[in-house]
Amino acid sequence: MNAFKYLLRFEDENGNIHYGEAGGPGSEGDFLQQKLKTYSGKTPWDPDFQLSDKTATIAKILSPLATTPIIHGVGLNYKAHAEEGNLKLPPFPILFVKYPDALANPYDDIPVHKEAWQLDYEAELCVIIGKECKDIPASKDPLDYVLGYSIGNDISSRYWQDKTRSSGQHGYGKSMDKFAPIGPVIVSRHVMTDSSSLKILTHVNGAVRQDSTTASMIFDVPALIRHLSRGITLRPGTIIMTGTPDGVAAFMKPSPWLKDGDVVEIEISGIGKIRNRMSFEDENSQPPDDRPPGF
Amino acid sequence: MNAFKYLLRFEDENGNIHYGEAGGPGSEGDFLQQKLKTYSGKTPWDPDFQLSDKTATIAKILSPLATTPIIHGVGLNYKAHAEEGNLKLPPFPILFVKYPDALANPYDDIPVHKEAWQLDYEAELCVIIGKECKDIPASKDPLDYVLGYSIGNDISSRYWQDKTRSSGQHGYGKSMDKFAPIGPVIVSRHVMTDSSSLKILTHVNGAVRQDSTTASMIFDVPALIRHLSRGITLRPGTIIMTGTPDGVAAFMKPSPWLKDGDVVEIEISGIGKIRNRMSFEDENSQPPDDRPPGF
Repeated sequence: MNAFKYLLRFEDENGNIHYGEAGGPGSEGDFLQQKLKTYSGKTPWDPDFQLSDKTATIAKILSPLATTPIIHGVGLNYKAHAEEGNLKLPPFPILFVKYPDALANPYDDIPVHKEAWQLDYEAELCVIIGKECKDIPASKDPLDYVLGYSIGNDISSRYWQDKTRSSGQHGYGKSMDKFAPIGPVIVSRHVMTDSSSLKILTHVNGAVRQDSTTASMIFDVPALIRHLSRGITLRPGTIIMTGTPDGVAAFMKPSPWLKDGDVVEIEISGIGKIRNRMSFEDENSQPPDDRPPGF
Repeated sequence: MNAFKYLLRFEDENGNIHYGEAGGPGSEGDFLQQKLKTYSGKTPWDPDFQLSDKTATIAKILSPLATTPIIHGVGLNYKAHAEEGNLKLPPFPILFVKYPDALANPYDDIPVHKEAWQLDYEAELCVIIGKECKDIPASKDPLDYVLGYSIGNDISSRYWQDKTRSSGQHGYGKSMDKFAPIGPVIVSRHVMTDSSSLKILTHVNGAVRQDSTTASMIFDVPALIRHLSRGITLRPGTIIMTGTPDGVAAFMKPSPWLKDGDVVEIEISGIGKIRNRMSFEDENSQPPDDRPPGF
């Protein structure tokens, strides 16, 4: 049984890092300057991770995990997203990896590499594994190995994801440093006992781009965990980004790629909202050719 | 400058783990029971990693890294392998990830999951990153960030890699636990100053299956590192499996999939040889249908 309800990792005004009990979902403005009770223990799956009597004040909100062993991504896991791309529903989850250095804080600016062309957002419900598992028997509930849920943005350079350059492998174009902001909290799976009907929304500069519900997922969270753990050890801290609904820039004509200064907000009911400003290293950088993405 | 020449990680007769100086390339029989001078320091990129006056005797040879932050795989990186699959040469490296728990020892039995159907081998030259890097400037040599070279087997379940099940993503079917045996040594890149004309060979139960040279690589080691580090931090201990030559079972008709008890030996000139016996959890397990792999 997790010790926490809404787990928030933050820096206090002296730069010390804590895990605190946020008490509920929210966005940056709800949390900043709040004084939270803090947890003992280094990671949420430590046996000694317990609410203490100490408090600390939130000066900066951090990603709810300091590091991750791996970030699994799931392609085309919402029916309408598959339809907008004219793609058949897959028979098994489409799995790729976002490299671990993609992990980023939920309200930080995202430094966009000068060659990360055709930049896109993807709102994703994130599942955090809290207990090692492998080959979960039919008698066991995969959710027993889940620590909780968070919000992620699967930031993607469609230029590099384009099959003419990636040969169809999704991971590389989604794995530049800080292309996976996550947060603001991890909601315990004992608090969020059902993640199958959450509202999931993306705004870019205040305009709605994605507006869906996790009820439209093709493979639900238990199915994803079962498939991922077939002969494979899942470690605590593993992040599963469970796929994105329709409304990404790649499938709009013309594609409104993210530009320098654009603010992407992703909201999931019961968890809160993350918000990241895109900070281009070179806003005038253009790809060496203008072929449209072909995936 | 690396402190070592041929780095071997091993257990002594008391189960203590050491890094030792092997002095040259070899296979299990060359190393077992040898007494090696050992290194101080925990990982080969630690500042205090230095040859000591202590010695220890090799009782069991381990993978040259205890853990890895990530294993990058490169698809279709040998001309003849692309040709045997009737596949066009890719314009950029085809990148996927083998999950870190795939790392295995160079002479251990590989436990083969009961659903890891259509099991195949892939001989691969492995590059180990020794120094953090990102966006390597044109004036710098990517090899300056390389610790050295090792041998790997990119063990693959072609059933799960088949595009009808993976939707074309390569990583998952290659990532069951222990699907990446590596070793026996890391040859320092100061010893192996040129990795572009090494002999690379696979034997299955003594019969030659792959017989090629790294000169047939499409993207050489510096090109792979440059592409992988575009906006992406490469950490010490990162393994790049640089692709496999022609001769895999998947492209033979009929495909001689690995069976329970099969012994796969992979040899690269200047590094030595690894050898793993396939140990099936259920040698009679059959996939739910008999569709051939379609990649």
